[in-house]
Amino acid sequence: MGQGRSLGLPVKVTVFVSPKSTVLDPQGAAVEHAMKSLGHASARGVRVGKTITFEIDGEDGPDTRKKLDELCDGLLSNPIIEDFRYEID
Amino acid sequence: MGQGRSLGLPVKVTVFVSPKSTVLDPQGAAVEHAMKSLGHASARGVRVGKTITFEIDGEDGPDTRKKLDELCDGLLSNPIIEDFRYEID
Repeated sequence: MGQGRSLGLPVKVTVFVSPKSTVLDPQGAAVEHAMKSLGHASARGVRVGKTITFEIDGEDGPDTRKKLDELCDGLLSNPIIEDFRYEID
Repeated sequence: MGQGRSLGLPVKVTVFVSPKSTVLDPQGAAVEHAMKSLGHASARGVRVGKTITFEIDGEDGPDTRKKLDELCDGLLSNPIIEDFRYEID
């Protein structure tokens, strides 16, 4: 409001969520086992995360980033066991 | 072999797997519904994908990329309904 009305332009957001490095990642362990079984013996440190891409009205600024922080922290990740970061295009 | 022995240096690989744009993404639809419920009415086009990060011995070259293509195509993604790309650090 203090900056006038939003232009209503959509921004494209990609959120990357990954298990914290201190947390066991059973899905990653399963993939690592499968990779080794398939002959990729040197594969290690496999971690599986997720990405969420979407569009939202706004512009890259403090207001949008505040909203995105809330979204990531409350809905898109579990802050106890996951880290997140996002990119805005 | 033709290029001599591998140096055995690890490369760090990140694979991004996402549902093809023509394929329904029920997980993305659920997240979109939740985002709208939380007051982010303008959120749209939500798609959920996954990332797999790991280390593997080799160097960024045709041999490693051939191996990674096979891995992504056969194990890490379902090529019928998903696209993949990867980055090598």
